[in-house]
Amino acid sequence: MVHPHIKSIYSLSFEAPSAREVAERCDIVFTAVPHGTAMDWVPGLLDAGTKVVDLSSDYRLPVDVFEKTYGMKHKAPRNAAFGLTELHPEVAAANLVGNPGCYPTGATLAVAPLAKAGLVDRVVFDSKSGISGAGVEPTETSHYPNMAENVIPYKLTTHRHAPEIRQELTKLSNDIKISFTPHVVPSVRGILTTAHVFAPEDAVEVIQDRAAVLEIYRKFYKDAHFIRMIEGAPKMSSVRGSNFCDISFEPEKGADRLVVLSVIDNLVKGAAGQAIQNMNLMSGLDETTGLWFPGLAP
Amino acid sequence: MVHPHIKSIYSLSFEAPSAREVAERCDIVFTAVPHGTAMDWVPGLLDAGTKVVDLSSDYRLPVDVFEKTYGMKHKAPRNAAFGLTELHPEVAAANLVGNPGCYPTGATLAVAPLAKAGLVDRVVFDSKSGISGAGVEPTETSHYPNMAENVIPYKLTTHRHAPEIRQELTKLSNDIKISFTPHVVPSVRGILTTAHVFAPEDAVEVIQDRAAVLEIYRKFYKDAHFIRMIEGAPKMSSVRGSNFCDISFEPEKGADRLVVLSVIDNLVKGAAGQAIQNMNLMSGLDETTGLWFPGLAP
Amino acid sequence: MVHPHIKSIYSLSFEAPSAREVAERCDIVFTAVPHGTAMDWVPGLLDAGTKVVDLSSDYRLPVDVFEKTYGMKHKAPRNAAFGLTELHPEVAAANLVGNPGCYPTGATLAVAPLAKAGLVDRVVFDSKSGISGAGVEPTETSHYPNMAENVIPYKLTTHRHAPEIRQELTKLSNDIKISFTPHVVPSVRGILTTAHVFAPEDAVEVIQDRAAVLEIYRKFYKDAHFIRMIEGAPKMSSVRGSNFCDISFEPEKGADRLVVLSVIDNLVKGAAGQAIQNMNLMSGLDETTGLWFPGLAP
Amino acid sequence: MVHPHIKSIYSLSFEAPSAREVAERCDIVFTAVPHGTAMDWVPGLLDAGTKVVDLSSDYRLPVDVFEKTYGMKHKAPRNAAFGLTELHPEVAAANLVGNPGCYPTGATLAVAPLAKAGLVDRVVFDSKSGISGAGVEPTETSHYPNMAENVIPYKLTTHRHAPEIRQELTKLSNDIKISFTPHVVPSVRGILTTAHVFAPEDAVEVIQDRAAVLEIYRKFYKDAHFIRMIEGAPKMSSVRGSNFCDISFEPEKGADRLVVLSVIDNLVKGAAGQAIQNMNLMSGLDETTGLWFPGLAP
Repeated sequence: MVHPHIKSIYSLSFEAPSAREVAERCDIVFTAVPHGTAMDWVPGLLDAGTKVVDLSSDYRLPVDVFEKTYGMKHKAPRNAAFGLTELHPEVAAANLVGNPGCYPTGATLAVAPLAKAGLVDRVVFDSKSGISGAGVEPTETSHYPNMAENVIPYKLTTHRHAPEIRQELTKLSNDIKISFTPHVVPSVRGILTTAHVFAPEDAVEVIQDRAAVLEIYRKFYKDAHFIRMIEGAPKMSSVRGSNFCDISFEPEKGADRLVVLSVIDNLVKGAAGQAIQNMNLMSGLDETTGLWFPGLAP
Repeated sequence: MVHPHIKSIYSLSFEAPSAREVAERCDIVFTAVPHGTAMDWVPGLLDAGTKVVDLSSDYRLPVDVFEKTYGMKHKAPRNAAFGLTELHPEVAAANLVGNPGCYPTGATLAVAPLAKAGLVDRVVFDSKSGISGAGVEPTETSHYPNMAENVIPYKLTTHRHAPEIRQELTKLSNDIKISFTPHVVPSVRGILTTAHVFAPEDAVEVIQDRAAVLEIYRKFYKDAHFIRMIEGAPKMSSVRGSNFCDISFEPEKGADRLVVLSVIDNLVKGAAGQAIQNMNLMSGLDETTGLWFPGLAP
Repeated sequence: MVHPHIKSIYSLSFEAPSAREVAERCDIVFTAVPHGTAMDWVPGLLDAGTKVVDLSSDYRLPVDVFEKTYGMKHKAPRNAAFGLTELHPEVAAANLVGNPGCYPTGATLAVAPLAKAGLVDRVVFDSKSGISGAGVEPTETSHYPNMAENVIPYKLTTHRHAPEIRQELTKLSNDIKISFTPHVVPSVRGILTTAHVFAPEDAVEVIQDRAAVLEIYRKFYKDAHFIRMIEGAPKMSSVRGSNFCDISFEPEKGADRLVVLSVIDNLVKGAAGQAIQNMNLMSGLDETTGLWFPGLAP
Repeated sequence: MVHPHIKSIYSLSFEAPSAREVAERCDIVFTAVPHGTAMDWVPGLLDAGTKVVDLSSDYRLPVDVFEKTYGMKHKAPRNAAFGLTELHPEVAAANLVGNPGCYPTGATLAVAPLAKAGLVDRVVFDSKSGISGAGVEPTETSHYPNMAENVIPYKLTTHRHAPEIRQELTKLSNDIKISFTPHVVPSVRGILTTAHVFAPEDAVEVIQDRAAVLEIYRKFYKDAHFIRMIEGAPKMSSVRGSNFCDISFEPEKGADRLVVLSVIDNLVKGAAGQAIQNMNLMSGLDETTGLWFPGLAP
């Protein structure tokens, strides 16, 4: 039994159907395979008339960026919507959605409203992720004696999620300087993103005005069910198991910096939950269907 | 905001109504107050015509045992069913149910079928609980630098839950010798109970027969939705956030010992989930209403 | 760099000398290789005139017990002392010492004085170990998302360390019934052993007398530098990084049970530290040389 | 027993002597009292002729900065050396040393060589600390169910350690823009500081040259016994229990950013170990006396 926790609730078995067989049985398919493998499946599924939410990185980036980032040829480019529904209402009309990476979800949601408002000259994303983001295979990093009581920075300047963040924020504002460094922390789930936002010279005063900044977020996210603006620092434990993204911010008095914090569950809003959110929109369902759940705390 | 994780989902506020006001508004009430305090509330609620599931220890034990165990006078004894529905179908007809302690739930469920079958001469319950069982107040034990990377045994021979275990197993078989020692481990949720069961001399052969023992469990729990007999050791992570109790066992070859393991989420099947399970039965609802959820793994 | 934490302090490199070359350069050798491999090395080292402390299991048990327990033929039996110095002063005169397993160290030290005093009819060892005991190779069990927030019982009735415990306690008292079940807990280092000791009928009163029992321990361990009798529950964190074994006990009022607790650092008193302790005695050094260190707390 | 882990090793008791009595018995005193309290003790100790290493924040900053930062009047200003020996050889001749805060130690050591070389236009310190830095008193934050599986940012823009960092780096280079945001992580010990260094326009090429940057660090720290330049990301576990500060860095290709990482044990190099290092220099001892220890890994 691969997943003992779902015993009694589900009695599904693993199967190996063809794309055509899948398409016959399903209105929509989640492809959760390694990057480079999704492109073997997606065209067949689309051609057979089903819709696809792809959880790999194959359909998140323009082909040239994908090929440079992942060091491989793209065998089957297709038009796809970027599945961050809070920024991309066109998801509702798409047949193929590239579900965003976990880091880009937390980072982009934290800063998008500021970017659109022209308040970002430079942003440094310092992200802290639970180790489940590294997958189910035991590795030296995920070995308990190595991970426990540690914080492990990795791919300091070269993480493959950086182009997704850059793509999304650049759409909103052209000239932002973006840095991104990820870390894993001794936690199973969750990503806390600390975004150090530096305002352009002419916006230093604006970012000092908490009420004005909050209003910018409120407007930007007025229809976003899963974004919660929070007082005080958001907690990974407040979104554990849920599809929410909690956000807060604090300007540094007398400086050009605004610290923005966001938390998501990397396995939910950063992956499976967001995929369902995309499916809901693609299927004409209420965006919150099956997701209106507060998670587990503590 | 006391519980930030439920923001957007619920918008309830804390209130301080009288027992009578509560009873007017509710068909059933959960009293989740300290032991010794529930007895101040329960009679008023019952008299006003509502049903009660009490999560304190005030209505789990006979008055004399309660008074001896908790060192206080019981001010308001009432007839109550013991809310372990797997053993007590009479819950369905009760107006007052004493929701069991978390340790007694895991321990009793692990061994009840064996006790009823006369297969237990002596049982040693060695329980390992997540620290959330100790409550929301910070203490020296729950201080992260003390709890992390530690295992802390406590109340080695005097824990107040022992009488509940004794009461339940003794109803099933008169002469069992019962020992119980609890520990807290660096986990938020979950109780693993390791039950070292020693068979009476005439049953040593029986307990060596895995199939026969499994059949005893299957029969005993044939209508119990939340009991899952598992192969291999059950995992706390498989019941995290769910109302399931997973159980497995292994006889010691050539010896008189059967090791039985059970896991529950102390905050769900060990507390709030079990309370809902009781409510469902008391209200004529399906026992699994609102509880048919696999929890979170990992 | 395999061990970055010792950079600047040591500048040793891994080498692959023959047994003869090792013996020429060393007065004493620690063989820390897998069981079944030590027996390839030890005879050559002894023949070349050096002393050996073997950290594998090859020289801890009589040949027949070893072969049955480990399912392999012993290629090179030799006379060896069992390296639990607190029970085996003959270590001082030995050329070959079998360094005990980590569980047997904690379990045996907890109960040896009682066994010798005839106070043990039955004992159930329920041990909780840090995951470092499982070695440096990543496994499914040691994968952080599986180990964190969990307690994992394993080899419930068949752990290979049981025969060592049995051997040691049986030397002290013939008729003890011994059960042993190990668990791993979310901790890197440390073993807490909960020993549920049941007294023979004629000793039930004796074990209720705390002062008398304490005196038995004090006498037994009067020359043991690394045994500390503790009030209250001993903590894994109190021996983290040190060679101490902390012990306490509590009789169950009105019952035949004495709960004894011991803690060690599985990597120190349970392995490398104990090996040094053996070396000290074999070399005529003070037993505490290089080991008189309180460890790290918190 | 307040510190059970040192039982048998030390048998000291808590005493309450006057400053004069202390001075009579000691050549040097460590004052480890809350900020605002050290100033009540230090003058008396100095006047009585003893030397002092103060672990509070009372003697780390100029009086005006201290008073503004801590919101209190300084009752007893004295000349003091800043006890970061790697930057302050004058510690050797001082009678009073202000032992640096834990965050400033890790942050300053990470970036000082670059600051002196004129390679820093802006630096963002994003620090991750073990929770032991918050002290021995249980709090809501240190409560295990709140801290486990979480990362908690706090005092995002207002932490009291920022002025120490600013003071030290500004001495080396006048015009650096400095940001600092601390977090606590589920670890007992350790601080990882991620320093996002942005070079001035004319130095963007220089920071891309790994060898040149490494040479700058090597020269700056050529006499610093406890600084280790590391390949790959430094690990908190590599300095756990030791006085080392491990540092590494990586330039971002095609950008103006250099990511510098440093790790220390907040309780050793960040507090008690550094205090001993200061004492060694003040007493004419070798700087490494009592500190040449690799810590515990794993």
